[in-house]
Amino acid sequence: MAFVRPMVPFEMVVFGGSGDLAMRKLYPALYHLHREKRLHNKGSIIGVARQEMARADFIEKARTACIEADGDSFEQDAWDAFSKRLDYVAFDALSAESYSVLESKLSKQSDNARVFYLSTSPDLYGAICCNLKKCGLTTKQTRVVLEKPVGYDLPSAQKINKEICQYFKEQQIFRIDHYLGKETVQNLKVLRFGNALFEPLWNAKAIKHVQITVAEEVGIDGRASYYENAGAMKDMIQNHLLQLLCIVAMEPPGDKSQDAIRDEKLKVLKSLRPIDPVNVSDFVVSGQYTAGAIKDKSCTGYRQEEGVDPKSDRETFVALKAQIDNWRWSGVPFFLRTGKRMGEKVSEIVIEYRSVPHSIFDPSAGELLNNKLIVRLQPNEGIKLILMAKMPGTGMDLQPVSLNLNFSEAFKGRKPGAYERLLMDVIRGIPSLFMRGDEIEASWGWVDQIMKGWKINSVTPLPYAAGSWGPEDSKSLIERYGFHWQENERL
Amino acid sequence: MAFVRPMVPFEMVVFGGSGDLAMRKLYPALYHLHREKRLHNKGSIIGVARQEMARADFIEKARTACIEADGDSFEQDAWDAFSKRLDYVAFDALSAESYSVLESKLSKQSDNARVFYLSTSPDLYGAICCNLKKCGLTTKQTRVVLEKPVGYDLPSAQKINKEICQYFKEQQIFRIDHYLGKETVQNLKVLRFGNALFEPLWNAKAIKHVQITVAEEVGIDGRASYYENAGAMKDMIQNHLLQLLCIVAMEPPGDKSQDAIRDEKLKVLKSLRPIDPVNVSDFVVSGQYTAGAIKDKSCTGYRQEEGVDPKSDRETFVALKAQIDNWRWSGVPFFLRTGKRMGEKVSEIVIEYRSVPHSIFDPSAGELLNNKLIVRLQPNEGIKLILMAKMPGTGMDLQPVSLNLNFSEAFKGRKPGAYERLLMDVIRGIPSLFMRGDEIEASWGWVDQIMKGWKINSVTPLPYAAGSWGPEDSKSLIERYGFHWQENERL
Repeated sequence: MAFVRPMVPFEMVVFGGSGDLAMRKLYPALYHLHREKRLHNKGSIIGVARQEMARADFIEKARTACIEADGDSFEQDAWDAFSKRLDYVAFDALSAESYSVLESKLSKQSDNARVFYLSTSPDLYGAICCNLKKCGLTTKQTRVVLEKPVGYDLPSAQKINKEICQYFKEQQIFRIDHYLGKETVQNLKVLRFGNALFEPLWNAKAIKHVQITVAEEVGIDGRASYYENAGAMKDMIQNHLLQLLCIVAMEPPGDKSQDAIRDEKLKVLKSLRPIDPVNVSDFVVSGQYTAGAIKDKSCTGYRQEEGVDPKSDRETFVALKAQIDNWRWSGVPFFLRTGKRMGEKVSEIVIEYRSVPHSIFDPSAGELLNNKLIVRLQPNEGIKLILMAKMPGTGMDLQPVSLNLNFSEAFKGRKPGAYERLLMDVIRGIPSLFMRGDEIEASWGWVDQIMKGWKINSVTPLPYAAGSWGPEDSKSLIERYGFHWQENERL
Repeated sequence: MAFVRPMVPFEMVVFGGSGDLAMRKLYPALYHLHREKRLHNKGSIIGVARQEMARADFIEKARTACIEADGDSFEQDAWDAFSKRLDYVAFDALSAESYSVLESKLSKQSDNARVFYLSTSPDLYGAICCNLKKCGLTTKQTRVVLEKPVGYDLPSAQKINKEICQYFKEQQIFRIDHYLGKETVQNLKVLRFGNALFEPLWNAKAIKHVQITVAEEVGIDGRASYYENAGAMKDMIQNHLLQLLCIVAMEPPGDKSQDAIRDEKLKVLKSLRPIDPVNVSDFVVSGQYTAGAIKDKSCTGYRQEEGVDPKSDRETFVALKAQIDNWRWSGVPFFLRTGKRMGEKVSEIVIEYRSVPHSIFDPSAGELLNNKLIVRLQPNEGIKLILMAKMPGTGMDLQPVSLNLNFSEAFKGRKPGAYERLLMDVIRGIPSLFMRGDEIEASWGWVDQIMKGWKINSVTPLPYAAGSWGPEDSKSLIERYGFHWQENERL
């Protein structure tokens, strides 16, 4: 049994505490942690938001959200105990009075972990942090959690980082990217650094290409006002996909300190070859979904979504080729791809190895396909190793087969979600799985060049039917380099 | 679909044609090949043996054997057609008259593959081959199949090889080791040379040790007269286990010729560090089973078996440490082990990789166990890759997990047995999967030193209870070098 860090008393304040993220993700995660006795008895959670709401109504709203998250496994008894931790404060982020009301709800225990979770518009990050400090709500054990996106380009991210760093030290700032809390992403690190089999072949000499796909079936889920300003590049590539790329590509950390892994991720981001805005279309394809159908269910097009400009040029799909200019990865293309309203919900990382140097088999045995390692984040989290094997029979017939590890089959029982892991780490004050300011800025710096390229070349996204795998150009992008997206492969 | 070699007309003469091996293995294999339309229409099979027997009786005896092998899937219609291929000749291997009767049964088509399968005592190999030649039964397309053991030590094997080579060219001589026809052994070659992932780490730099176990539940199955002269060393180690070691250890073959793989296997045998007879007990443990129980079924001891000398010192178990003194394997111990009346029927090859050079994980995450590749020949043929993974949860708890490829699950349908594959190759004249004379001799040369050591040191086998994993000394042998037999491992 592994060592478990002791639980610490805490108070958590959720700004945007009646909002969508808080309800869908945060309260269910906290409720699960409570139910599994992972939270200290002395731990309270205060939702704060603009709207007036009685505590009882807030609790009922959160309960409904938890039931929705849990389905049949919801436990009323556990909920009753958990709900005692909950409180609500109607709040104006710009009014000093609100902060003083909030302060009165907080304990006087300066040793308690005090978490301010900012699930608000990034525009408010600076003001809230400033007010927390000014009104004396911060302690030595205070941490502040920022939801993505931190900014919308490099200058705005720099501005936010600079502002917040006036009030908090870097190690107090937890910029959340929930992909880093996913079990498979954690496991990718273990796979690479806990197994002698992979790391010696984890480089340009052995690996031919890498592809990372995060395909969603959902559309914009009623969040038109957010999405019209964001798009796939800012919403997904700048954070989730580049973070996954970092975990795949980083060097082994130099020590066990909390910054060691983040240092390595930063190095990867800094090694990304900048995409010249003039040639952006050689490396990046953008798309926007039109009406179509997913699994026989018809879907409206993006421009017809409620709240979306009927002439909107916001991209809901991006595919791109990245290149990491360092010793390990020289010449190995990394293809990233994400989109909404795709034919299938799938997040996976595909690592294709180079071919054997020479085939000892007769050509009649069939083609030797390259080995692949497929790390699947969802659905059916797991690892698959694709190898060549001989088919049973008196001849020699070679076919690809797959060695599987399906996490949900291998490990029975409920798996904690990414937010549970990350909230635990916030309370315990462990920032390794959160993005550091310099990472965010490096990643915006790279993404900004692409968006600049779109602007100067007046690139507009290519239409693709809902339920497809994106515009045809996405296929030709990867095939131009001699590769195929995984859905077009035999295995 | 892989290329399938065309079928060729053939006649096969089985010496010892009413014996145990012919009945249990050869006729069922031929019947299966017939049923699956892998045999040319023009193909006949003649059993020859000392005893008088009518053709109809012979056919009925073979039918019974095939029903036993097939169980419910036996098909009478297919059998009826197959049985038309069968004939029987009462035969005295030393009488010219017998050969002339046999000749009258053979076709005059000199292009037919003509197979003489010698399922007799090795003492008769020379005489039969001589008579076949003298009596004019051999053609250009003649091949002769020798069952193991070829000899009982180096001089006797040399004598047999020399004798037979007077009458047949090396490429006409098929020395059978049915382990080489097993699907998993075939697949081991594909695993190594058809996949870029394994070969770069298939050496002393990456691999810590190799163990090969062939454990049987059966005892001597009524074959006391054979076994009293053989024992585990001659019956199993000299052929099956050393052949498996060769397949694991050999270099990639230099070309696609039929001798290329056999050349590489021979090199391995020649690189085996000779075991100094004086120190034999440092490297070899022998055992003999005593009364015990396997899966709650009680078993008699070896000395109590019918036909066995009550004071017999014949070994029914051997465990040994071999060392291959070449560039690739320097310093990597290969542990071989085989025994009768073991607790479980299992044949497998375990390859343990070295540890990661440095752990980036906190010691509280648990021990990083070494990666292993397990190739299982039986039961449940398959490949298992044992890796470290993170257990689901909000902490970091590392545990070994296994990536599996179970052949019988992956490939539905009946798998051809080893003899089917090998008999096809004999008919087609492809000797790659058979042992060449020089391989046999090299392997006897190595084994002879051990047996010499037993003799000069008066080593007698250690008792072990039926149903155990052999004498305790087998455990201490491997543990002295810091390793464990796989059954004592967590995964």
